[in-house]
Amino acid sequence: MSNYYNCILFDRFEALDTFGPAEVISQLPEDYTLAYYSMTGGLIKSSQNFEIYTRSMDEIIPGGVMMIPGGMGTRVLVNDEAFILALGQLCDGADYVHTVCTGTALLAKTGRLDRKNATTNKRAFDWVASNRPQVKWQKKARWVTDGKFYTSSGVTAGIDMALGFVADHYGLDRAIEISATIEHIWHQDKHNDPFAEE
Amino acid sequence: MSNYYNCILFDRFEALDTFGPAEVISQLPEDYTLAYYSMTGGLIKSSQNFEIYTRSMDEIIPGGVMMIPGGMGTRVLVNDEAFILALGQLCDGADYVHTVCTGTALLAKTGRLDRKNATTNKRAFDWVASNRPQVKWQKKARWVTDGKFYTSSGVTAGIDMALGFVADHYGLDRAIEISATIEHIWHQDKHNDPFAEE
Repeated sequence: MSNYYNCILFDRFEALDTFGPAEVISQLPEDYTLAYYSMTGGLIKSSQNFEIYTRSMDEIIPGGVMMIPGGMGTRVLVNDEAFILALGQLCDGADYVHTVCTGTALLAKTGRLDRKNATTNKRAFDWVASNRPQVKWQKKARWVTDGKFYTSSGVTAGIDMALGFVADHYGLDRAIEISATIEHIWHQDKHNDPFAEE
Repeated sequence: MSNYYNCILFDRFEALDTFGPAEVISQLPEDYTLAYYSMTGGLIKSSQNFEIYTRSMDEIIPGGVMMIPGGMGTRVLVNDEAFILALGQLCDGADYVHTVCTGTALLAKTGRLDRKNATTNKRAFDWVASNRPQVKWQKKARWVTDGKFYTSSGVTAGIDMALGFVADHYGLDRAIEISATIEHIWHQDKHNDPFAEE
Protein backbone atom coordinates (compact mmCIF):
# COMPACT_ATOMS: atom_id res chain seq x y z
CA MET A 1 0.00 0.00 0.00
CA SER A 2 1.37 3.37 -0.93
CA ASN A 3 1.61 6.39 1.34
CA TYR A 4 -0.02 9.70 0.56
CA TYR A 5 1.84 12.83 -0.47
CA ASN A 6 -0.67 15.34 0.88
CA CYS A 7 -0.28 18.82 -0.61
CA ILE A 8 -1.91 21.59 1.47
CA LEU A 9 -3.22 24.33 -0.82
CA PHE A 10 -4.74 27.78 -0.20
CA ASP A 11 -5.69 30.76 -2.32
CA ARG A 12 -2.64 32.46 -3.85
CA PHE A 13 -0.37 29.43 -3.43
CA GLU A 14 2.64 29.27 -5.73
CA ALA A 15 2.08 26.48 -8.26
CA LEU A 16 5.71 25.59 -8.86
CA ASP A 17 6.37 25.27 -5.11
CA THR A 18 3.83 22.44 -5.15
CA PHE A 19 4.30 20.78 -8.52
CA GLY A 20 8.10 20.73 -8.37
CA PRO A 21 8.21 18.32 -5.40
CA ALA A 22 5.00 16.61 -6.60
CA GLU A 23 6.71 15.83 -9.93
CA VAL A 24 9.63 14.18 -8.13
CA ILE A 25 7.34 12.15 -5.86
CA SER A 26 5.15 11.15 -8.84
CA GLN A 27 8.20 9.31 -10.15
CA LEU A 28 7.79 6.93 -7.16
CA PRO A 29 4.32 5.72 -8.22
CA GLU A 30 4.37 2.53 -6.18
CA ASP A 31 5.29 4.41 -3.03
CA TYR A 32 3.10 7.52 -3.01
CA THR A 33 -0.31 8.69 -4.13
CA LEU A 34 -0.50 12.46 -4.65
CA ALA A 35 -3.45 14.24 -3.06
CA TYR A 36 -4.50 17.88 -2.70
CA TYR A 37 -6.28 19.46 0.26
CA SER A 38 -7.35 22.83 1.59
CA MET A 39 -8.94 24.05 4.83
CA THR A 40 -12.52 23.49 3.69
CA GLY A 41 -12.03 21.77 0.32
CA GLY A 42 -13.37 22.93 -3.05
CA LEU A 43 -11.75 25.13 -5.68
CA ILE A 44 -8.51 26.87 -4.76
CA LYS A 45 -6.93 29.58 -6.94
CA SER A 46 -3.19 29.66 -7.50
CA SER A 47 -1.11 32.81 -8.03
CA GLN A 48 -0.62 31.40 -11.54
CA ASN A 49 -4.27 32.12 -12.35
CA PHE A 50 -5.83 28.65 -12.33
CA GLU A 51 -8.29 26.81 -10.13
CA ILE A 52 -7.72 23.31 -8.77
CA TYR A 53 -10.06 20.98 -6.91
CA THR A 54 -9.12 20.10 -3.33
CA ARG A 55 -10.57 17.92 -0.62
CA SER A 56 -11.08 19.12 2.95
CA MET A 57 -8.04 18.82 5.23
CA ASP A 58 -10.09 16.93 7.80
CA GLU A 59 -10.21 13.98 5.36
CA ILE A 60 -6.45 13.45 5.57
CA ILE A 61 -5.44 10.02 6.83
CA PRO A 62 -2.48 10.11 9.27
CA GLY A 63 0.87 8.98 7.86
CA GLY A 64 2.72 9.77 4.66
CA VAL A 65 4.15 13.17 3.79
CA MET A 66 2.49 16.54 4.27
CA MET A 67 3.65 19.17 1.77
CA ILE A 68 3.19 22.93 2.30
CA PRO A 69 3.98 25.32 -0.57
CA GLY A 70 4.59 29.05 -0.30
CA GLY A 71 3.02 31.98 -2.08
CA MET A 72 1.45 35.32 -1.28
CA GLY A 73 -1.45 33.53 0.42
CA THR A 74 0.84 32.65 3.33
CA ARG A 75 0.92 36.33 4.37
CA VAL A 76 -2.72 36.09 5.41
CA LEU A 77 -2.74 32.46 6.58
CA VAL A 78 -0.03 32.89 9.22
CA ASN A 79 -2.62 34.88 11.16
CA ASP A 80 -5.47 32.38 10.67
CA GLU A 81 -5.56 30.65 14.04
CA ALA A 82 -7.98 27.89 13.00
CA PHE A 83 -5.84 26.99 9.98
CA ILE A 84 -2.60 26.98 11.98
CA LEU A 85 -4.19 24.82 14.68
CA ALA A 86 -5.43 22.29 12.10
CA LEU A 87 -2.07 22.34 10.29
CA GLY A 88 -0.22 21.57 13.52
CA GLN A 89 -2.44 18.59 14.25
CA LEU A 90 -1.95 17.23 10.71
CA CYS A 91 1.75 17.77 11.10
CA ASP A 92 1.76 15.57 14.22
CA GLY A 93 0.11 12.77 12.25
CA ALA A 94 2.44 12.94 9.25
CA ASP A 95 5.54 10.80 8.94
CA TYR A 96 7.36 13.65 7.16
CA VAL A 97 6.63 17.30 6.44
CA HIS A 98 7.98 19.15 3.38
CA THR A 99 7.80 22.93 3.01
CA VAL A 100 8.89 25.18 0.17
CA CYS A 101 9.59 28.92 0.29
CA THR A 102 7.20 30.83 2.60
CA GLY A 103 5.31 27.60 3.29
CA THR A 104 7.89 27.28 6.05
CA ALA A 105 6.27 30.27 7.79
CA LEU A 106 3.01 28.33 8.11
CA LEU A 107 4.75 25.29 9.57
CA ALA A 108 6.82 27.48 11.90
CA LYS A 109 3.69 29.19 13.18
CA THR A 110 2.39 25.83 14.45
CA GLY A 111 5.33 25.72 16.87
CA ARG A 112 6.45 22.32 15.56
CA LEU A 113 9.73 23.78 14.28
CA ASP A 114 10.69 25.36 17.62
CA ARG A 115 14.38 24.70 18.43
CA LYS A 116 14.74 22.91 15.08
CA ASN A 117 16.81 23.95 12.07
CA ALA A 118 14.87 25.27 9.08
CA THR A 119 15.17 27.55 6.05
CA THR A 120 13.02 29.49 3.60
CA ASN A 121 13.23 31.83 0.59
CA LYS A 122 16.07 34.27 1.15
CA ARG A 123 14.17 37.32 -0.11
CA ALA A 124 11.33 36.61 2.33
CA PHE A 125 13.68 35.41 5.07
CA ASP A 126 13.24 38.23 7.60
CA TRP A 127 9.45 38.15 7.34
CA VAL A 128 9.30 34.35 7.71
CA ALA A 129 11.75 34.32 10.63
CA SER A 130 9.87 37.13 12.40
CA ASN A 131 6.82 34.88 12.62
CA ARG A 132 8.60 32.41 14.92
CA PRO A 133 11.97 33.45 16.39
CA GLN A 134 12.07 30.16 18.36
CA VAL A 135 13.13 28.31 15.17
CA LYS A 136 16.87 27.93 14.46
CA TRP A 137 16.68 29.72 11.10
CA GLN A 138 19.45 28.80 8.66
CA LYS A 139 20.33 31.70 6.37
CA LYS A 140 22.55 29.72 4.03
CA ALA A 141 20.96 26.45 2.89
CA ARG A 142 19.34 25.16 -0.30
CA TRP A 143 17.29 22.98 2.02
CA VAL A 144 17.43 21.81 5.64
CA THR A 145 16.47 18.49 7.22
CA ASP A 146 15.79 18.16 10.94
CA GLY A 147 14.06 14.98 12.06
CA LYS A 148 10.91 14.55 10.02
CA PHE A 149 11.01 18.13 8.71
CA TYR A 150 12.35 19.08 5.26
CA THR A 151 12.28 22.84 4.65
CA SER A 152 13.55 24.44 1.46
CA SER A 153 14.48 27.78 -0.04
CA GLY A 154 12.44 29.40 -2.78
CA VAL A 155 10.45 27.67 -5.52
CA THR A 156 12.81 25.39 -7.50
CA ALA A 157 14.84 24.62 -4.37
CA GLY A 158 11.84 22.45 -3.55
CA ILE A 159 12.70 20.17 -6.47
CA ASP A 160 16.23 19.76 -5.15
CA MET A 161 14.86 19.10 -1.65
CA ALA A 162 12.41 16.46 -2.90
CA LEU A 163 15.27 14.68 -4.67
CA GLY A 164 17.17 14.90 -1.37
CA PHE A 165 14.22 13.23 0.35
CA VAL A 166 14.28 10.47 -2.25
CA ALA A 167 18.03 10.02 -1.75
CA ASP A 168 17.64 9.85 2.05
CA HIS A 169 14.85 7.25 1.97
CA TYR A 170 15.23 5.37 -1.31
CA GLY A 171 18.93 5.78 -2.07
CA LEU A 172 21.08 8.18 -4.07
CA ASP A 173 20.83 6.09 -7.23
CA ARG A 174 17.07 6.42 -7.28
CA ALA A 175 17.29 10.20 -6.88
CA ILE A 176 19.83 10.46 -9.70
CA GLU A 177 17.63 8.25 -11.89
CA ILE A 178 14.61 10.50 -11.28
CA SER A 179 16.60 13.65 -11.98
CA ALA A 180 17.65 12.13 -15.33
CA THR A 181 14.05 11.18 -16.16
CA ILE A 182 12.80 14.71 -15.57
CA GLU A 183 16.04 16.21 -16.99
CA HIS A 184 16.54 18.21 -13.82
CA ILE A 185 20.11 19.32 -13.13
CA TRP A 186 20.00 18.40 -9.46
CA HIS A 187 21.96 20.47 -6.96
CA GLN A 188 22.72 17.66 -4.52
CA ASP A 189 24.54 19.70 -1.89
CA LYS A 190 21.93 21.18 0.42
CA HIS A 191 24.55 23.47 1.95
CA ASN A 192 25.35 25.15 -1.40
CA ASP A 193 23.01 28.13 -1.56
CA PRO A 194 23.94 30.65 -4.26
CA PHE A 195 21.06 32.92 -3.24
CA ALA A 196 22.18 33.41 0.37
CA GLU A 197 23.88 36.69 1.22
CA GLU A 198 27.44 36.23 2.39
CA MET B 1 -2.59 45.68 -22.35
CA SER B 2 -0.88 42.42 -21.53
CA ASN B 3 -0.53 39.44 -23.81
CA TYR B 4 -1.85 36.03 -22.92
CA TYR B 5 0.30 33.04 -22.02
CA ASN B 6 -2.07 30.33 -23.20
CA CYS B 7 -1.32 26.89 -21.77
CA ILE B 8 -2.85 24.01 -23.74
CA LEU B 9 -3.78 21.17 -21.37
CA PHE B 10 -5.05 17.62 -21.88
CA ASP B 11 -5.64 14.57 -19.73
CA ARG B 12 -2.36 13.13 -18.39
CA PHE B 13 -0.38 16.32 -18.96
CA GLU B 14 2.76 16.73 -16.86
CA ALA B 15 2.14 19.46 -14.30
CA LEU B 16 5.74 20.64 -13.93
CA ASP B 17 6.11 21.01 -17.73
CA THR B 18 3.36 23.63 -17.51
CA PHE B 19 3.93 25.33 -14.18
CA GLY B 20 7.69 25.67 -14.60
CA PRO B 21 7.42 28.08 -17.55
CA ALA B 22 4.17 29.53 -16.14
CA GLU B 23 6.03 30.47 -12.92
CA VAL B 24 8.69 32.33 -14.90
CA ILE B 25 6.10 34.16 -17.01
CA SER B 26 4.03 34.99 -13.90
CA GLN B 27 7.01 37.07 -12.78
CA LEU B 28 6.22 39.39 -15.74
CA PRO B 29 2.75 40.32 -14.45
CA GLU B 30 2.39 43.52 -16.48
CA ASP B 31 3.25 41.71 -19.70
CA TYR B 32 1.31 38.43 -19.57
CA THR B 33 -1.90 37.01 -18.23
CA LEU B 34 -1.77 33.24 -17.69
CA ALA B 35 -4.67 31.23 -19.10
CA TYR B 36 -5.45 27.51 -19.39
CA TYR B 37 -7.28 25.78 -22.23
CA SER B 38 -8.17 22.33 -23.51
CA MET B 39 -9.87 20.99 -26.63
CA THR B 40 -13.41 21.27 -25.26
CA GLY B 41 -12.82 23.02 -21.91
CA GLY B 42 -13.85 21.77 -18.47
CA LEU B 43 -11.90 19.71 -15.97
CA ILE B 44 -8.59 18.23 -17.10
CA LYS B 45 -6.67 15.67 -15.03
CA SER B 46 -2.89 15.88 -14.72
CA SER B 47 -0.54 12.92 -14.34
CA GLN B 48 0.09 14.35 -10.86
CA ASN B 49 -3.45 13.37 -9.82
CA PHE B 50 -5.29 16.71 -9.71
CA GLU B 51 -8.02 18.34 -11.75
CA ILE B 52 -7.82 21.86 -13.13
CA TYR B 53 -10.46 24.00 -14.84
CA THR B 54 -9.83 24.93 -18.47
CA ARG B 55 -11.62 26.98 -21.08
CA SER B 56 -12.25 25.74 -24.59
CA MET B 57 -9.41 26.27 -27.07
CA ASP B 58 -11.77 27.99 -29.51
CA GLU B 59 -11.98 30.92 -27.06
CA ILE B 60 -8.29 31.75 -27.50
CA ILE B 61 -7.65 35.26 -28.82
CA PRO B 62 -4.84 35.38 -31.45
CA GLY B 63 -1.50 36.76 -30.28
CA GLY B 64 0.61 36.14 -27.20
CA VAL B 65 2.36 32.88 -26.43
CA MET B 66 0.94 29.37 -26.81
CA MET B 67 2.46 26.85 -24.39
CA ILE B 68 2.27 23.07 -24.90
CA PRO B 69 3.43 20.75 -22.10
CA GLY B 70 4.32 17.09 -22.42
CA GLY B 71 3.11 14.04 -20.55
CA MET B 72 1.75 10.58 -21.24
CA GLY B 73 -1.39 12.13 -22.75
CA THR B 74 0.62 13.18 -25.81
CA ARG B 75 0.93 9.52 -26.86
CA VAL B 76 -2.78 9.49 -27.65
CA LEU B 77 -3.16 13.09 -28.82
CA VAL B 78 -0.59 12.88 -31.62
CA ASN B 79 -3.15 10.67 -33.41
CA ASP B 80 -6.15 12.94 -32.71
CA GLU B 81 -6.60 14.67 -36.06
CA ALA B 82 -9.17 17.20 -34.85
CA PHE B 83 -6.91 18.28 -31.98
CA ILE B 84 -3.82 18.54 -34.18
CA LEU B 85 -5.75 20.57 -36.78
CA ALA B 86 -7.01 22.99 -34.11
CA LEU B 87 -3.55 23.22 -32.53
CA GLY B 88 -1.98 24.11 -35.87
CA GLN B 89 -4.46 26.92 -36.45
CA LEU B 90 -3.86 28.33 -32.95
CA CYS B 91 -0.14 28.07 -33.58
CA ASP B 92 -0.51 30.26 -36.69
CA GLY B 93 -2.26 32.92 -34.61
CA ALA B 94 0.27 32.94 -31.76
CA ASP B 95 3.22 35.33 -31.67
CA TYR B 96 5.36 32.64 -30.00
CA VAL B 97 4.97 28.94 -29.25
CA HIS B 98 6.67 27.22 -26.29
CA THR B 99 6.81 23.45 -25.91
CA VAL B 100 8.27 21.28 -23.15
CA CYS B 101 9.25 17.61 -23.34
CA THR B 102 6.87 15.51 -25.48
CA GLY B 103 4.68 18.57 -26.04
CA THR B 104 7.04 19.10 -28.97
CA ALA B 105 5.55 15.97 -30.61
CA LEU B 106 2.13 17.65 -30.70
CA LEU B 107 3.52 20.82 -32.25
CA ALA B 108 5.62 18.80 -34.73
CA LYS B 109 2.56 16.84 -35.81
CA THR B 110 0.89 20.08 -36.98
CA GLY B 111 3.65 20.42 -39.58
CA ARG B 112 4.59 23.91 -38.36
CA LEU B 113 8.06 22.70 -37.29
CA ASP B 114 8.90 21.19 -40.69
CA ARG B 115 12.46 22.14 -41.75
CA LYS B 116 12.92 23.97 -38.44
CA ASN B 117 15.24 23.12 -35.54
CA ALA B 118 13.63 21.65 -32.44
CA THR B 119 14.31 19.41 -29.45
CA THR B 120 12.48 17.31 -26.85
CA ASN B 121 13.07 14.99 -23.87
CA LYS B 122 16.06 12.79 -24.63
CA ARG B 123 14.48 9.60 -23.25
CA ALA B 124 11.45 10.06 -25.51
CA PHE B 125 13.51 11.44 -28.39
CA ASP B 126 13.13 8.60 -30.88
CA TRP B 127 9.37 8.39 -30.38
CA VAL B 128 8.90 12.15 -30.73
CA ALA B 129 11.13 12.36 -33.81
CA SER B 130 9.38 9.41 -35.46
CA ASN B 131 6.14 11.42 -35.47
CA ARG B 132 7.56 14.00 -37.87
CA PRO B 133 10.89 13.24 -39.57
CA GLN B 134 10.62 16.52 -41.52
CA VAL B 135 11.72 18.45 -38.41
CA LYS B 136 15.46 19.14 -37.95
CA TRP B 137 15.64 17.34 -34.58
CA GLN B 138 18.49 18.48 -32.32
CA LYS B 139 19.75 15.66 -30.10
CA LYS B 140 21.96 17.82 -27.92
CA ALA B 141 20.20 20.96 -26.67
CA ARG B 142 18.70 22.13 -23.37
CA TRP B 143 16.32 24.14 -25.54
CA VAL B 144 16.13 25.31 -29.17
CA THR B 145 14.81 28.54 -30.68
CA ASP B 146 13.85 28.81 -34.35
CA GLY B 147 11.80 31.84 -35.34
CA LYS B 148 8.77 32.00 -33.11
CA PHE B 149 9.25 28.46 -31.79
CA TYR B 150 10.88 27.64 -28.46
CA THR B 151 11.16 23.88 -27.83
CA SER B 152 12.77 22.38 -24.75
CA SER B 153 14.05 19.12 -23.32
CA GLY B 154 12.31 17.36 -20.45
CA VAL B 155 10.40 18.94 -17.58
CA THR B 156 12.69 21.40 -15.77
CA ALA B 157 14.45 22.32 -19.02
CA GLY B 158 11.21 24.24 -19.63
CA ILE B 159 12.09 26.60 -16.77
CA ASP B 160 15.50 27.28 -18.33
CA MET B 161 13.82 27.83 -21.73
CA ALA B 162 11.27 30.27 -20.31
CA LEU B 163 14.11 32.26 -18.73
CA GLY B 164 15.80 32.17 -22.15
CA PHE B 165 12.61 33.61 -23.67
CA VAL B 166 12.63 36.39 -21.07
CA ALA B 167 16.30 37.12 -21.81
CA ASP B 168 15.64 37.24 -25.57
CA HIS B 169 12.67 39.60 -25.32
CA TYR B 170 13.10 41.53 -22.07
CA GLY B 171 16.87 41.42 -21.53
CA LEU B 172 19.33 39.20 -19.70
CA ASP B 173 19.13 41.28 -16.51
CA ARG B 174 15.40 40.65 -16.21
CA ALA B 175 15.91 36.88 -16.65
CA ILE B 176 18.64 36.84 -13.98
CA GLU B 177 16.43 38.88 -11.65
CA ILE B 178 13.56 36.40 -12.07
CA SER B 179 15.84 33.41 -11.51
CA ALA B 180 16.97 35.01 -8.24
CA THR B 181 13.37 35.69 -7.17
CA ILE B 182 12.38 32.06 -7.69
CA GLU B 183 15.80 30.83 -6.49
CA HIS B 184 16.26 28.87 -9.70
CA ILE B 185 19.85 28.04 -10.61
CA TRP B 186 19.42 28.95 -14.28
CA HIS B 187 21.36 27.03 -16.92
CA GLN B 188 21.72 29.88 -19.36
CA ASP B 189 23.55 28.00 -22.11
CA LYS B 190 20.91 26.31 -24.25
CA HIS B 191 23.60 24.23 -25.96
CA ASN B 192 24.73 22.63 -22.69
CA ASP B 193 22.66 19.46 -22.38
CA PRO B 194 23.96 17.03 -19.75
CA PHE B 195 21.21 14.54 -20.58
CA ALA B 196 22.12 14.14 -24.26
CA GLU B 197 24.02 11.00 -25.23
CA GLU B 198 27.46 11.73 -26.61
